[in-house]
Amino acid sequence: MVEQTAALRHWGVSIGTMPTGAANSLTDVAGVTVGHCTLADDAIQTGVTAIKPHPGNLFRNKVPAAVHVINGFGKSIGLVQVDELGVLETPILLTNTFSIASAADGLLDYCLGQSPEVGVTTGTINPVVCECNDGYLNEIRGRHITRQHALEALANCTSQVDQGSVGAGRGMSCFGWKGGVGSSSRLISVGDATYTLGALVLSNFGDAGWLRLDGTPLGDLAASADPERSEDKGSVIIVLATDMPCSSRQLQRLAKRSVVGLARTGSYIGQGSGDIALAFSNAQTKPHRAEDAVPTFQEVHEDHLEQGFQAVALAVEEAVWNSLTYAETVVGRSGHTRQGISVRKDEILRRHGRGHSTL
Amino acid sequence: MVEQTAALRHWGVSIGTMPTGAANSLTDVAGVTVGHCTLADDAIQTGVTAIKPHPGNLFRNKVPAAVHVINGFGKSIGLVQVDELGVLETPILLTNTFSIASAADGLLDYCLGQSPEVGVTTGTINPVVCECNDGYLNEIRGRHITRQHALEALANCTSQVDQGSVGAGRGMSCFGWKGGVGSSSRLISVGDATYTLGALVLSNFGDAGWLRLDGTPLGDLAASADPERSEDKGSVIIVLATDMPCSSRQLQRLAKRSVVGLARTGSYIGQGSGDIALAFSNAQTKPHRAEDAVPTFQEVHEDHLEQGFQAVALAVEEAVWNSLTYAETVVGRSGHTRQGISVRKDEILRRHGRGHSTL
Amino acid sequence: MVEQTAALRHWGVSIGTMPTGAANSLTDVAGVTVGHCTLADDAIQTGVTAIKPHPGNLFRNKVPAAVHVINGFGKSIGLVQVDELGVLETPILLTNTFSIASAADGLLDYCLGQSPEVGVTTGTINPVVCECNDGYLNEIRGRHITRQHALEALANCTSQVDQGSVGAGRGMSCFGWKGGVGSSSRLISVGDATYTLGALVLSNFGDAGWLRLDGTPLGDLAASADPERSEDKGSVIIVLATDMPCSSRQLQRLAKRSVVGLARTGSYIGQGSGDIALAFSNAQTKPHRAEDAVPTFQEVHEDHLEQGFQAVALAVEEAVWNSLTYAETVVGRSGHTRQGISVRKDEILRRHGRGHSTL
Amino acid sequence: MVEQTAALRHWGVSIGTMPTGAANSLTDVAGVTVGHCTLADDAIQTGVTAIKPHPGNLFRNKVPAAVHVINGFGKSIGLVQVDELGVLETPILLTNTFSIASAADGLLDYCLGQSPEVGVTTGTINPVVCECNDGYLNEIRGRHITRQHALEALANCTSQVDQGSVGAGRGMSCFGWKGGVGSSSRLISVGDATYTLGALVLSNFGDAGWLRLDGTPLGDLAASADPERSEDKGSVIIVLATDMPCSSRQLQRLAKRSVVGLARTGSYIGQGSGDIALAFSNAQTKPHRAEDAVPTFQEVHEDHLEQGFQAVALAVEEAVWNSLTYAETVVGRSGHTRQGISVRKDEILRRHGRGHSTL
Repeated sequence: MVEQTAALRHWGVSIGTMPTGAANSLTDVAGVTVGHCTLADDAIQTGVTAIKPHPGNLFRNKVPAAVHVINGFGKSIGLVQVDELGVLETPILLTNTFSIASAADGLLDYCLGQSPEVGVTTGTINPVVCECNDGYLNEIRGRHITRQHALEALANCTSQVDQGSVGAGRGMSCFGWKGGVGSSSRLISVGDATYTLGALVLSNFGDAGWLRLDGTPLGDLAASADPERSEDKGSVIIVLATDMPCSSRQLQRLAKRSVVGLARTGSYIGQGSGDIALAFSNAQTKPHRAEDAVPTFQEVHEDHLEQGFQAVALAVEEAVWNSLTYAETVVGRSGHTRQGISVRKDEILRRHGRGHSTL
Repeated sequence: MVEQTAALRHWGVSIGTMPTGAANSLTDVAGVTVGHCTLADDAIQTGVTAIKPHPGNLFRNKVPAAVHVINGFGKSIGLVQVDELGVLETPILLTNTFSIASAADGLLDYCLGQSPEVGVTTGTINPVVCECNDGYLNEIRGRHITRQHALEALANCTSQVDQGSVGAGRGMSCFGWKGGVGSSSRLISVGDATYTLGALVLSNFGDAGWLRLDGTPLGDLAASADPERSEDKGSVIIVLATDMPCSSRQLQRLAKRSVVGLARTGSYIGQGSGDIALAFSNAQTKPHRAEDAVPTFQEVHEDHLEQGFQAVALAVEEAVWNSLTYAETVVGRSGHTRQGISVRKDEILRRHGRGHSTL
Repeated sequence: MVEQTAALRHWGVSIGTMPTGAANSLTDVAGVTVGHCTLADDAIQTGVTAIKPHPGNLFRNKVPAAVHVINGFGKSIGLVQVDELGVLETPILLTNTFSIASAADGLLDYCLGQSPEVGVTTGTINPVVCECNDGYLNEIRGRHITRQHALEALANCTSQVDQGSVGAGRGMSCFGWKGGVGSSSRLISVGDATYTLGALVLSNFGDAGWLRLDGTPLGDLAASADPERSEDKGSVIIVLATDMPCSSRQLQRLAKRSVVGLARTGSYIGQGSGDIALAFSNAQTKPHRAEDAVPTFQEVHEDHLEQGFQAVALAVEEAVWNSLTYAETVVGRSGHTRQGISVRKDEILRRHGRGHSTL
Repeated sequence: MVEQTAALRHWGVSIGTMPTGAANSLTDVAGVTVGHCTLADDAIQTGVTAIKPHPGNLFRNKVPAAVHVINGFGKSIGLVQVDELGVLETPILLTNTFSIASAADGLLDYCLGQSPEVGVTTGTINPVVCECNDGYLNEIRGRHITRQHALEALANCTSQVDQGSVGAGRGMSCFGWKGGVGSSSRLISVGDATYTLGALVLSNFGDAGWLRLDGTPLGDLAASADPERSEDKGSVIIVLATDMPCSSRQLQRLAKRSVVGLARTGSYIGQGSGDIALAFSNAQTKPHRAEDAVPTFQEVHEDHLEQGFQAVALAVEEAVWNSLTYAETVVGRSGHTRQGISVRKDEILRRHGRGHSTL
C-alpha cells in the first residue's frame, strides 16, 4: 500500500477551503466501503475496484442514485436502469474496458448469492460496471480479469480507500502521467446538520498539455513525460456518495457538477473519453418489496444543493489529483511506462507557489 | 356550453374497465381547476385554457411535476425548468402557436400580481405555456390572443371542465374532425387508499385515415370529412394530474405513458406534430422558502405506478375521444370547416358494435 | 424450423395497407442478416439471437444508429455509446438478462478476432447486447449461455429470419402466451426511390388482459392461458433497420415510434418492463479512420420521415404478432408452460372478423 | 461604444495558444451578425441582443443546430424544437427573464414578415429566445422590453460585436462584477481547411469568491466588490457558431463543452443558474421545402471534433472574460451598482503575473 503521505494535502496543497471528512475520501460517508483487486505482472497491469454504498443487501434495500453521462464514449453496464428507476441495487464495479463482462458476471455471482429470490420469486437485478481503457499499460485484449477477481474486490471492501496504481486504477493514465484511483471528500452544513460528500475517481483522461493544479498550468511538465500522446483520450469514472437525503433528481444534479472538477484539472472532455458520473445517497434506502405502499423520504431543500455543488467541484478536482500523487510509476505492455507525477513534486510545488489556494 | 351528454360515455362507450372519478375529468383530482377564454368570430377561432394545480399560490407552494416530450415539434415555454427542478410554480396555459408570448405575458401578470417578492427579494418565476397550431380554422398570423385573454382564462377556473370547441381548443382539428379540449379520469387503489389520475388533452393531431375508437378502425369515415389533409400534423398537449404522492421522476414515468393513449386513438406520432405531456401531483407541495431544510415527502412505491400507467393509457385515450365527441362543428378562416364527429355517431356506434370494451 | 405458414399474414390478417418487403422481415433490408442459437433442454429454455447490419467489418465501417429507451427497466450493454456517437460498430446480440455478460464476451471474441488493431493501435470497441427476462420458462439463474453460444448465433446469420420460440426468444412470454422473435417490414416511397424498413422484436412483455389484434380485444382469451401473471412485466427489444439514408437523429425519431406499435398490441409500457428500441441505417457507412476528413452523407428530408413513422408503427405491431403466431408451446422450468397462441387461431380470427384491416 | 482596447487580449492576457479569428468574436464565422438594443435610464438597465446565423431567410434555409442545457433553471423559448429537429429557423434573441415573451413577439413579427407563407400554406415557426435575470440592476418587474426593441436589435445586426454592458448584457452581473456580452473565437485546422468557431456569452453567473483568470484565483477581489451576494446565481447563455460542417449531434457535443469554459472561469454551475448553450453551423443549410428528397451534407469526421472541443473550452472562457473586461460600471435600480472589473486591472494583472498562459 502506498503511504498516506502521498496525498495532495501532504504536499501542502488544498483545493478550496471547504472542510474535508476525516479520511478525505469516499468512505467518509458512513457505511460506504471500497475494495480492490490488483493484477500487476509484466504486461498485465489491471484490476477491479468495488464500491459498496452500504453494508447490507442492496437489492432488498436500494439506495437513491443517478447517472450523468458527461461524454458517452464508454461501455458501462447498468446505467439505463439507474436512470429510469433512480436506484442502485448492487455494488459498483470499475475495471478495464474489455473486462466489463467478466466483472459483471462476478458481480452477478455475488448478488445472486446474497438474494436467492432474484430470478425465482421476484425479478432480475441490475449489475453496474463502469470502465476505462488501460490498454497503454495493460495487455487489454488478453481480458485477464475473471469473475474471481471481481469477487475479490468485493470481498476486500473496507472503510479505507487505497489510492493510486491499485485496483481498476492499476493500468490507467492521466494527463500523460500515471493515473488510477483517487478520492476526496467535503463536509456540507445544512441547518444544524453536517453531511458528507465523497468522490472517488478512476482517472484515465486528460491531454498532457492541459494539466493544471488548482489553476497553475503544468502542461509543459506533463508533455515531457508523454511525448507521443497528447489528446484527451481514455475516460474517467466518477463515483459520488453522500449521506445528505437526496432524491435521484437531486443526485443527478450533483453528478452533473463532476464536470466542473474535471475541467478544473484541465480536461476539455475529449471526444474519445468516456466520462461518466454516478451519484448515490445512503441516507435512506428504498425497499424492494412494496409492503409499505407509500413510504416517506426526506429530501434536502433545493437551495441547499448549492454547497453540495461546490463540494462536488472541489472533491472531484482533488480526487483526480490524489489519483496522480498516489500513483506509483508502472511499466507494462511492450515496456510502456507511465511515471508517477510525484517524481516532479518539487517543481510542481515551486510553480504552484502557494501551499493553500484562496479558492 | 355543450351539454354533458356529449361525452363518449353517454354514447355508451367506455374505455377499459377501471373506474373513473365522479366527473370523469381532470378536476376529479381535488384542488385542480380549469378555465377557458374562447374567441369565436368569423376567421378568429381560438382561445386560451388555464389549468391550476391547486387553489393557492403556486410559486410559494410548488407542485412536483415532470415533462415528457413525445415529439418536440412544438413551441412551448417553461418546460426546461420543470425538467430540471421537478416542480411547477405557475398555472399551465394552453393556446395557439403564435400566441404563446402574449399568453405568457398574461400569466406573468397574474403570477407577479400574486407574488410581489418575485424579481425583487427572491428570484424569477417560470411560466408554463403550451400550444397547438389552430391555423386551419383560425387566422393564426393575426395573433388575436392578448394578455387579457390569458387573465380571463385564469379567472374562469372552476372545478368543472367544459370540453370540445372551447378555450384553446376552439380552433383545433383532430384526425380530420373538429378536435379541442377533452378530459377523463381514473381511480387507482393503493393499499387502503384511492387516488385519482386525471387527463386533459388539447387535441390537434392525427392522420385522418388512422382514427380508432377503442380498437375499431374509423379511418375511412374520417377521410370523407377531410379530403385534403391526411397527415398526422398539428400537435397534442396532454396534462396529467394526480393526488397520488409521486416524485418528479415518477411523474415523468406517468407522462411517458401518454403516448400509449395517443397510439390507441390511431396516432403514429407524426413528424410535424408537437406532442408534449406534462404531469403533476398535488398530493404535497414544495415550499419556495427553505425554512424547513430537509422536508419529508411521501412517494408511492414504484410497483404501484403500474395502475397509474394503465390509468394514463385509458384516460388519455378517452380524453381524446371526449375532445371529439364534445366538439361542435366550427367554420373559420377562409370558410374552412371541421365537423364535430357526433354527426356520425350512429355509424360509429354501429361499427364499434359494443357498448363496453372488454379492455 | 417453424413453417412460414405460421405468419400472421398466413392467418389472413394484415396490419395496415403499406406494402411489405419480399420476406416481410428485417432482412428485407439488403445486407442485414439474423442468426440464432437455441438451447431447449428441460429447465434450460433460452438462447442468443444475432443481428448483423451489414456483412463487412462494422468496426471499420460503422452504421448510423440510435437508441430510444421506452422504459429503462433493462440491463443492456453498449447503448450509452450508441447514443453519444450515433453509430453501431458491432453486431447486436439479444439474450436473457443474466447472460448479457457472457454474450458480450462472445461478441468481443468475434469483434476482436475481426479487428486485430482494436486495443493495440486504435481504441476499444463497443459491444451491444440487449436482453429480456425469460425466467418463467428458463432457469435463468443457471446462466447457461456461454461465449460459444454467442459465437454460434453470429455464425448462423443468414438473410432468413426464423421466428417464434427460437434464439433469444426461446424462453420468452408475451401477453401470457408464448412470445419470442418476430419480424416484419414495410416499403417506403420517397420520390423515385423505394426504401425498406424492417423490424425485429424479442417479445417478452404485455399484461395478459390487454392483448389486441389490430384493434380487436383478446384479453379474456389470454387471461385463460395465464391465470397467475397479468402484469406488463418482462421486456421487449425492438431492432429497426432501414436502407433509407438517415442521420442518427432521424433514426432516433424512428426508434421513438416503436412504442406506437407496442401500444397497438395492447402494451401500456409496464413499470417493470425493459423496453428498448435500436435503429440503424445501412444505406451508408462511417469509416473508423479519419482519412476523409469531411465525408459526405445523404440524409432524407425530414418530411419524408412521415412514411417511416407509419412503417415503424405497423411493422412493430406485426412483428410482435408474428412472434406470437410463430411461437410453439414451450414447457420449461418447474413445468411452467407457455402456450403458442396458434392453439386459439380459429377463435381469434372469428373475433377479429375481418381478414384485412382498413388500417 | 466601449473601445476595442477593453478586450482581455489588450490587457495582455491570452487564453490558450490556439489562434483566434480576425476579430476574436462570434462574427469571425462568415455570415454571422450580431445586434443590440440597449435601454439605460435610471432603474431601467436592460436590452436585447440578436444573433443571425446567416443573412438570408432562416425559415426557408435552416441551419443545423443543437442545445445543451447545462442547468435548466431558465425560461428559454424554442429549445424543445431545436432539440427534436436539429435546426434553427429564426435568429436567436437574448434578453431579460421577464421579457422573453415580448422579445418572442418581436421575433415573430420579424419572421412572419419575412415569410408570408408561414401559418398559411406551410406550418409554424419556432422563435428562439434565451434570457438571464438582470433584476439586481434592472427593474425587471417593469418588463420594459417591447416588440419594438427586439426589432431594433434585429435591425442593428452587423458583423461587429459590441461587448460589455450592452444589449441584453446591459443589466447583467458576473462573479459580483458587471457582466454582459462577451465574445471570442478560435481557428480549427482540419486537413487543408481552416474553420472558425466563435462563442458569444451573455454572462450573469458566478459566485464572487470563485472567480479565476486563466487559473489565477481572484475571488477575494471580487468579494470586496460584492459584499452581499456570493452565490452562483443568475444564468449564462452561450451561443456557439461555426463554419465547420457538423451534424446537430456533433453540434450538441460542441455545446456540451461550454461547461468547461465556464468552469475555467470559476463557475461550479450554481443551482439557481440557468446555463444554456446553443450551437449552430452555417456551413450548410437545410431547406424547408422537400424538393430535394434526399439531400447531401458534409459532416466532419468525429475525430476532428477534438480541436473543436478545445476551441469551445478556450473561446467560452475568454468570452466570459471579455464580457467582464469590456463592461463599464452600471448603476441601476435602487442605486444598485456593479463595477466594471477594469477598475482592478492592474491588481489582476499583477496577480496573474504572466501575459500569456502556457495553456
